Amino acid sequence: MAEEYDLVILGGGTGGYVAAIRASQLGLKTALVEKGKLGGTCLHKGCIPSKALLRSAEVYAQTKHSEEFGVLTSDVSVNFTKVQERKGKIVDQLHKGVQHLMKQGKIDVYEGLGRILGPSIFSPMPGTISVEMNNGEDNAMLVPKNVIVATGSRPRTLPGLEIGGKVMTSDEALSMEEIPASIIIVGGGVIGIEWASMLADFGSDVTVIEYADRIIPTEDKEISKEMQRLMKKKGVKIVTSAKVLPETLKQGDTVAISAEVKGEQKEFTAEKVLVSVGRQANVEGIGLENTDIQVEKGYIATNEYFQTKESHIYAIGDVIGGLQLAHVASHEGIVAVEHIAGENPHPIDYDLVSKCIYSAPEAASVGITEDQAKEKGFKVKTGKFSFKAIGKALVFGESDGFVKIVADEETNDILGVHMIGPHVTDMISEAGLAKVLDATPWEVAHTIHPHPTLSEAIGEAALAVDGKAIHG
Amino acid sequence: MAEEYDLVILGGGTGGYVAAIRASQLGLKTALVEKGKLGGTCLHKGCIPSKALLRSAEVYAQTKHSEEFGVLTSDVSVNFTKVQERKGKIVDQLHKGVQHLMKQGKIDVYEGLGRILGPSIFSPMPGTISVEMNNGEDNAMLVPKNVIVATGSRPRTLPGLEIGGKVMTSDEALSMEEIPASIIIVGGGVIGIEWASMLADFGSDVTVIEYADRIIPTEDKEISKEMQRLMKKKGVKIVTSAKVLPETLKQGDTVAISAEVKGEQKEFTAEKVLVSVGRQANVEGIGLENTDIQVEKGYIATNEYFQTKESHIYAIGDVIGGLQLAHVASHEGIVAVEHIAGENPHPIDYDLVSKCIYSAPEAASVGITEDQAKEKGFKVKTGKFSFKAIGKALVFGESDGFVKIVADEETNDILGVHMIGPHVTDMISEAGLAKVLDATPWEVAHTIHPHPTLSEAIGEAALAVDGKAIHG
Repeated sequence: MAEEYDLVILGGGTGGYVAAIRASQLGLKTALVEKGKLGGTCLHKGCIPSKALLRSAEVYAQTKHSEEFGVLTSDVSVNFTKVQERKGKIVDQLHKGVQHLMKQGKIDVYEGLGRILGPSIFSPMPGTISVEMNNGEDNAMLVPKNVIVATGSRPRTLPGLEIGGKVMTSDEALSMEEIPASIIIVGGGVIGIEWASMLADFGSDVTVIEYADRIIPTEDKEISKEMQRLMKKKGVKIVTSAKVLPETLKQGDTVAISAEVKGEQKEFTAEKVLVSVGRQANVEGIGLENTDIQVEKGYIATNEYFQTKESHIYAIGDVIGGLQLAHVASHEGIVAVEHIAGENPHPIDYDLVSKCIYSAPEAASVGITEDQAKEKGFKVKTGKFSFKAIGKALVFGESDGFVKIVADEETNDILGVHMIGPHVTDMISEAGLAKVLDATPWEVAHTIHPHPTLSEAIGEAALAVDGKAIHG
Repeated sequence: MAEEYDLVILGGGTGGYVAAIRASQLGLKTALVEKGKLGGTCLHKGCIPSKALLRSAEVYAQTKHSEEFGVLTSDVSVNFTKVQERKGKIVDQLHKGVQHLMKQGKIDVYEGLGRILGPSIFSPMPGTISVEMNNGEDNAMLVPKNVIVATGSRPRTLPGLEIGGKVMTSDEALSMEEIPASIIIVGGGVIGIEWASMLADFGSDVTVIEYADRIIPTEDKEISKEMQRLMKKKGVKIVTSAKVLPETLKQGDTVAISAEVKGEQKEFTAEKVLVSVGRQANVEGIGLENTDIQVEKGYIATNEYFQTKESHIYAIGDVIGGLQLAHVASHEGIVAVEHIAGENPHPIDYDLVSKCIYSAPEAASVGITEDQAKEKGFKVKTGKFSFKAIGKALVFGESDGFVKIVADEETNDILGVHMIGPHVTDMISEAGLAKVLDATPWEVAHTIHPHPTLSEAIGEAALAVDGKAIHG
């Protein structure tokens, strides 16, 4: 039996389900095919569960230091089973929310593995979707006018560094039953640093091994440096310019691995190893070979409206590479759907996308770094303001970090905003809006930031761009 | 001995000292006269110390509930002496910061009471400042080209409701040595609600008596309603439409006071009474009578550049009334100084000023309320989005509250943004910037708010204005 649709979406992660909702709002008859759980990586193996663990780690760290605030306690300890239960409850609640949104939008959800068929009796064009249902029932056959591929990604591993036993990716780490006494984290990017921060706050002895010469190497150099300082302050050992040698892995009572650090081979030993070296697109087993869709360097190639070489088949989210962030996937999904519906959407300007790191301290940025701006030939001016001079940061009890604004001296455009410190992941959207509206530092500075708030650091950094910070 | 200045500022509060810094940046020879401590009410009797106490109350509340996060403790208690010590340390640190900024800016600080003289041997115009020095030395005589009056305000009291004994204003409350077992708060405005929230979190039995028919009556009605619900949830008793009868005050082992509530007289008894019924400008004893400066309804009258009737004498901050917020005072100070220096500043549009309430939950707003918009004749459309549907709010553990955007259906302008919930005081600046740049809800919605953050509620509320919320 074949069912016809305006749109079939392969993959019910953040990109896919948001696209489905927007399609429903626009009146498209829509189906979503998901083999696992609605919500995908973000909800079940990424953003949400990791942030739930980070929040418990933050509460633990704060409770241990509550005496600073005049709050006395004794016997502070972590019950990691309860931490995991809380994580599970939050995920369940949000999962139910997504299920509800699908019902509300009258979106047909097929629980199974979808594959794109080539030209067939159902359609002369490739794009019919065959769904191998999870419940073992007959395959469903969906005949859509358009398809969106949103199959996401999975943790990348290093060749030779087998996952299993004491060696995990973030997928396995999320369901750890105990906090490891010690851990080696291979990869000091965003995911690696979030885990390092969390596990150090929970009391693990953490070593981060990073290939580049600094952690979070895609962020502004000054942010990396401050993050490194603050991670070290909480006891995280950081080894940079280090190439892990997978063949040196030894698993026994503990696990050991060697890395070449500035020409020298060093061995690291711990209870666990977490491999966080990026994410790999899920392009296999979904029938791309039955189409003209191109895969370049492991990612599906698309144009700015997310059309593949088959113009009625779109692809969005982690499977097309790029920033591989949930909010990017969902906006790509919205653009793709609006394009399908003939709504003439704006293509996404990736320079306007905010990126967040949920370690303690948090970091967040939008736009380009100072070095990138210089490489691009801009005449750069910067303004920087420390949370140390922000009353609310002292009140809050966290005054490490700063806000840095990179601007173009000639046009006065804001090129990038880089923040590290308390609540910056919630505050970066002001900078995001400034970028979207092409605001100058002057306009940001003349937005009266209420006192006493952490956001005053943004206003002061904007003043500092022209040497006019009040409290600097 | 007379010293000549380009500018003398009367009052070293937030308005005064920020004006002094800006004046110094612009090359004006500047003196600041302050009888008390640099930093004024905001630093010593307002924003900062109250937020420090609120932060300790928040940590206490969270520590008591840390088990929800998988963090076990026992014997959680408050050491209020330590709470007060922490508050004192933060104030001291910021106070030293202001002193440092004055030195850095080469601003002469006169510790004493300044008074404006009329025409004298020093100047044919009123404005010479006589300073009665705190250290008992000879009066200083300052001869400025321009003067800024920034003498601030003090808590208002109700006629007949004497401050003393068990009856306090926020000034006395800030130095309480113990948390009162019970307290009556007269006035459910911003200050009253912050104290109610803090003391309830510390374990006091709190009753708020408010004259209007709702608490925080200057905020949007839906914010008041949600705040009332959440205050009641933490045990605060709220009595609205209630007129306190000062002559019924009885002080003994406890303190009792009656109020007329909807025609009926009711008595309330507690250990303490806190009177928070607004603030009164400090216009007395500063020599206004020696000038043509006009005082209207208790406040100094100025034009949009903060010039009084004596065009070389300016007045800013609480002494001129209006919003009476620290960030307003400092921006008024900057505008006044730039006007003095011939810099052609933009007058302040008070509709663009954000207002914050630091209770738990926090509230924040910018622009006008839905009711005000309707009264002004706008055809109003609104978008509202609950933190309940925001993943990060669930992760954070606080999902009460919402973001509400009031927009003009005809022009698509954002008229007001009203928020209650976690971190909203840090997030309101995005809305402030949106107002400054005259952004539409569409532009705010199309700013990609990173996931998972609390700021997603702003993006969703902006989508909701046109019925397009994704998770709603």
